[in-house]
Amino acid sequence: MPASHAQYQALARQLDVDAIALVPGPNFVRLLGQDFHSHERPMLVVIPAEGDPAAIVPNLELGSFALVGFEGKVFDWRDQDGYQHAFDALAKHMTLSTLAVEGQIMRVFVHHALMKAYPDLRIDDAEKAISGLRICKTDDEVAALERAIRISEVALQQTLDRVRVGMTEKEVEQILVMALFANGADDQAFGPIVAAGDNSARPHAHARADYRLQPGDALLFDFGARKDGFAADITRTVFVKEASDEARAVYDTVLRANLKGHEITRAGVTAHDIDDAVTAVLEASPYADRIRTKTGHGLGRDVHEAPYIMRGNHEALAAGAVFTNEPGLYQLGNFGIRIEDDILVTETGCRSLTQFPKDLMIVG
Amino acid sequence: MPASHAQYQALARQLDVDAIALVPGPNFVRLLGQDFHSHERPMLVVIPAEGDPAAIVPNLELGSFALVGFEGKVFDWRDQDGYQHAFDALAKHMTLSTLAVEGQIMRVFVHHALMKAYPDLRIDDAEKAISGLRICKTDDEVAALERAIRISEVALQQTLDRVRVGMTEKEVEQILVMALFANGADDQAFGPIVAAGDNSARPHAHARADYRLQPGDALLFDFGARKDGFAADITRTVFVKEASDEARAVYDTVLRANLKGHEITRAGVTAHDIDDAVTAVLEASPYADRIRTKTGHGLGRDVHEAPYIMRGNHEALAAGAVFTNEPGLYQLGNFGIRIEDDILVTETGCRSLTQFPKDLMIVG
Repeated sequence: MPASHAQYQALARQLDVDAIALVPGPNFVRLLGQDFHSHERPMLVVIPAEGDPAAIVPNLELGSFALVGFEGKVFDWRDQDGYQHAFDALAKHMTLSTLAVEGQIMRVFVHHALMKAYPDLRIDDAEKAISGLRICKTDDEVAALERAIRISEVALQQTLDRVRVGMTEKEVEQILVMALFANGADDQAFGPIVAAGDNSARPHAHARADYRLQPGDALLFDFGARKDGFAADITRTVFVKEASDEARAVYDTVLRANLKGHEITRAGVTAHDIDDAVTAVLEASPYADRIRTKTGHGLGRDVHEAPYIMRGNHEALAAGAVFTNEPGLYQLGNFGIRIEDDILVTETGCRSLTQFPKDLMIVG
Repeated sequence: MPASHAQYQALARQLDVDAIALVPGPNFVRLLGQDFHSHERPMLVVIPAEGDPAAIVPNLELGSFALVGFEGKVFDWRDQDGYQHAFDALAKHMTLSTLAVEGQIMRVFVHHALMKAYPDLRIDDAEKAISGLRICKTDDEVAALERAIRISEVALQQTLDRVRVGMTEKEVEQILVMALFANGADDQAFGPIVAAGDNSARPHAHARADYRLQPGDALLFDFGARKDGFAADITRTVFVKEASDEARAVYDTVLRANLKGHEITRAGVTAHDIDDAVTAVLEASPYADRIRTKTGHGLGRDVHEAPYIMRGNHEALAAGAVFTNEPGLYQLGNFGIRIEDDILVTETGCRSLTQFPKDLMIVG
């Protein structure tokens, strides 16, 4: 079994549950070294606090599953028979009264199948503890993140070189996405945001096919490559041809907030402290009413993972944690600006894995 | 409210539940006309059998949510406050004792938040009924599917033209993915499968960076563009330079099974009947032990959706349903072959939306 198996066993004991269940997703990949499609087919690994693990695997995945070196009982099921019998067989094989699951990943149909097989089971949402094992990155994981980030940065520069007044947001998005793959991305980390003018004020905007870039537009890119299982997540906001005084002042405010995040980060500082310091810069500006989001989130196999960099989260950050530092200011009907770096926490401070320049940039 | 709102209301009455809850995903998009990122932030629309709907929306999505024309109470929440208070406020606003949810889409943390707000709530997994409303496609939806399929077919042809002995699976995959975007895909419908030689025997294989195409290899492509919200899903298996007699015989068997699927499909035939007839062709061949999967699945906004084309599913198919007809034969350590078309059910038969040739093809 992979080394991380013992970590999940230890976590089960620490959480005082009989076992931990993982479903396809970032923790599953971390444990088994391979990703699986799940869709309508439940798949599950159960790691008990004591003893051997067991798995429920769709029959058509057995070939791929055989490659991961799983040392435990496997209950497979075929489409025509449905999956409940595999859960029932698991219940005969392994007694459980408490089970910790990944609440943000496991879906209700798996929850229901478990409850049907184990009518008295208590299912705890232990998302935070389970996914928390991914917070501190190994050197290899940081290297994969850096590869994803480098690809993203090169793709962004190539895209900015081609942006012109009159292009639609969709056209710019297409250039960006193709540049990601041309530079070696395995996939996109998430559906990118390419948003200009008033659309940039929506933190999760969609590129429009019917809006053409105009001089003075803010143009926000929030995107990332996925490489070797790890996700980049970068935001830069540039200006088309020119930037108004208001835009420059807001940009400067966001940049100062972003730099504050870098400045105060080091191992031992809490997520609360970072969000508080970054947000305080925004709050002290004339644009405090444009604050819409927390400072950031952890980054790794998943685009959004622990630690969440927000007030009220008093977790101290450990060396090896990677998070996004992405303050922004958004005014609906006007424009939005966000600057996002991916930061590695170190004992003495931090290292920005994102290297792309942050000075206000005019394109087109 | 969109017209489909009334459909969900009617469904709630038919299921005899107080309301239906939808979370971001294909049903949510169908209702609201727009996709939302969800990640760690719960978002929910509740449509009661009687009366106005309500929604739980992360504060940072309010700007985007305002565009969808939702006519009901909205409970928003900010990261720093957590989301439970929004669920509690919903519970004060709307009395519920039974709720139907999408079990394959809703995640456990939303289930837990609902149970905390409504301690006596009965949550039914009504995935089949809720997503079942998407089975019959409108003409506009079929047109979007066809756009996604045309892009995919052009991209496949461009890729096949460039395949050469000695390329790695990863290199071929990169050519395919870039061709999808170059031809106007909004996204990939799913992570593509580009698998050669023994890797083609794994129904959900991953492209390898260290395997180079050899003469005689089967080369399987399972992929699709996403366009205007709809997903293509196409498989073709070609051969590099040459095909062995065994490969030709297996290919011929799979092709006959695929053609059988087209032949017997028409409105009123059941999913069971189609899978049974298609699988019977495979079973009557010398390669019956290489059967690993059902015949197919519905296709639309989601890559895998109802109806599932498998024995035991006695749903009669209605005109307007679109499904994949994808018989295959797989021998681990040897090779696999799959031929997959996207088929529209009509009153008198079917129309294959996939037009790409199916005769055995030699490339490279």
